[in-house]
Amino acid sequence: MNHRGEFSMIEEVFRPLAEVNHFSFGLSDDAAIMQLDSNQDLVVTSDAMADGIHFDSYTPAADVARKLLRSNLSDIAAMGGIPISYTLTTALPEHYRDTWIEEFAEGLKVDQKNFGVSLIGGDTISSRSLVLSMTLLGRVDSNQTLRRNGALAGDALYVSGTIGDAGIGLSITKNKPNNIDTASKKFFLDRLHKPSPRLELGQSLITLSSAAIDVSDGLIADLEHICAESKVAATVWLESVPISEAAKNFINGDSGANVARLSAGEDYELIFTAPDYSAENIALISKQLGVQITHIGSISEGRGVTVIDRDSEEVFLSSKGFSHY
Amino acid sequence: MNHRGEFSMIEEVFRPLAEVNHFSFGLSDDAAIMQLDSNQDLVVTSDAMADGIHFDSYTPAADVARKLLRSNLSDIAAMGGIPISYTLTTALPEHYRDTWIEEFAEGLKVDQKNFGVSLIGGDTISSRSLVLSMTLLGRVDSNQTLRRNGALAGDALYVSGTIGDAGIGLSITKNKPNNIDTASKKFFLDRLHKPSPRLELGQSLITLSSAAIDVSDGLIADLEHICAESKVAATVWLESVPISEAAKNFINGDSGANVARLSAGEDYELIFTAPDYSAENIALISKQLGVQITHIGSISEGRGVTVIDRDSEEVFLSSKGFSHY
Repeated sequence: MNHRGEFSMIEEVFRPLAEVNHFSFGLSDDAAIMQLDSNQDLVVTSDAMADGIHFDSYTPAADVARKLLRSNLSDIAAMGGIPISYTLTTALPEHYRDTWIEEFAEGLKVDQKNFGVSLIGGDTISSRSLVLSMTLLGRVDSNQTLRRNGALAGDALYVSGTIGDAGIGLSITKNKPNNIDTASKKFFLDRLHKPSPRLELGQSLITLSSAAIDVSDGLIADLEHICAESKVAATVWLESVPISEAAKNFINGDSGANVARLSAGEDYELIFTAPDYSAENIALISKQLGVQITHIGSISEGRGVTVIDRDSEEVFLSSKGFSHY
Repeated sequence: MNHRGEFSMIEEVFRPLAEVNHFSFGLSDDAAIMQLDSNQDLVVTSDAMADGIHFDSYTPAADVARKLLRSNLSDIAAMGGIPISYTLTTALPEHYRDTWIEEFAEGLKVDQKNFGVSLIGGDTISSRSLVLSMTLLGRVDSNQTLRRNGALAGDALYVSGTIGDAGIGLSITKNKPNNIDTASKKFFLDRLHKPSPRLELGQSLITLSSAAIDVSDGLIADLEHICAESKVAATVWLESVPISEAAKNFINGDSGANVARLSAGEDYELIFTAPDYSAENIALISKQLGVQITHIGSISEGRGVTVIDRDSEEVFLSSKGFSHY
């Protein structure tokens, strides 16, 4: 960590987040050192969040921290990796430097414990607006990663959890509707701010799944990446896409809103493909982990994603992705 | 890389910077995978830069890119590591999205070739102000890193290159003086924008040096980290601290300005300590690499840094560090 001068106070806030262990040796040098076992590869992912774009002044700083960590963890989950440690760069305007950053560090502390990771380095700088960037490092057994490029014609298509909750959460933060009960509101905001990275599921799928990705941009948009990398087509059965009870109530039969779920991002569930003979094992994993897994479609030869309804009619989406911009 | 929707054009600018090789497998998945040899450890460092703080609208985008990469490379150099690859997060207001980012990528491309590294992932987001964050990954033979904590009483203190040039470069960008010739101005700005990370020197020092750090915050401020981590004191001989011809002319006998060099940051030279019996080998390395190395002081029992002049009188510094803030 450089530019210590003005920032030593802030860095003292982060220092308790560093932990010396088998994989990393603390914050005291120019760079962190990590030892991996000889039969393991390194998994690396970076994500950033900005004030006014990914969150606003109403978002608790602890939630911002947990979202940043969890969205990075989700990328590691989609590769079947085990997270180890992370670096953090914080670019801060002056007025964020006291309570905000302390609450932010507190949020990281809680989730570090939840997910078994620790801080190994980073940088703290001044800036005109608040931007946070995290690089998360994980490990996988050599040549045992889930990739996007292995889906084959004939594979089944699955998704974990429910789809659309985070998107509804985001619309709540923007439109502040009155016609929603407190419990539902909390559910949607929790899904938006504290997604559940599917780490155990990803690790369990390594030998079963042919391709996987996490839902960050939207189910269709992310599935399109699997199709592009695997050079296949995907069909999604609209009525099969899992929906939470709260979302069902919120949408209340509006078919447009129901379809919009497929374009809403940030659910951080896993979409994955697997050959038919894996179905039983996948059902077993779902039960063991207590994670809902739903068969939502199929892979075929061709390119791109098609959504069909129960009459096999194609459903057209107005927007294929969700973007903060 | 997530949030592709609005940013696919920008990411196409960065895609040519990715390279599939023995260490990393390209940009197409949720996270990058790297294979390290079994007898190697990973070195990780992160640094960030912000518009209006570390550079301004007059700074060429290519120079911003090269400074960001080189300041990260310098951290790897200070550990004796060999750089491999990096992730990049760019937080961009709308008006930076065309020419600026193309020129930025062009700067990275030039220095990737110079230093043998490539892009393996990252994130591109919208923000209210421009912030760039890079995480650089490198490798070292297991348990063969240069650390900050090995300096011993009796060791000699060395520094590479010349000290104060980047600080003068920064004062030129701020104060825009007239009384400086074009060649000198270019020299100082090059030292500021395109520092030379001392990678080969760091790697050569692994078996010779007891502790090392790079000069990012200022010679005294960074040396204080060695003293703190090694639990020793350091004495710096003011007249021995190497100065460039251009800096000597610029300072023109002003003793205050001469002392201020010791507090100016961003030279990205290496400060290191070594036992007396290493002196001959250090001289040999200096000659082999064509890098000036100067004996500037000594390590003793105690704590903290003292600067003395040729009469052994203590020199007091008004400010012990340089900060962008």
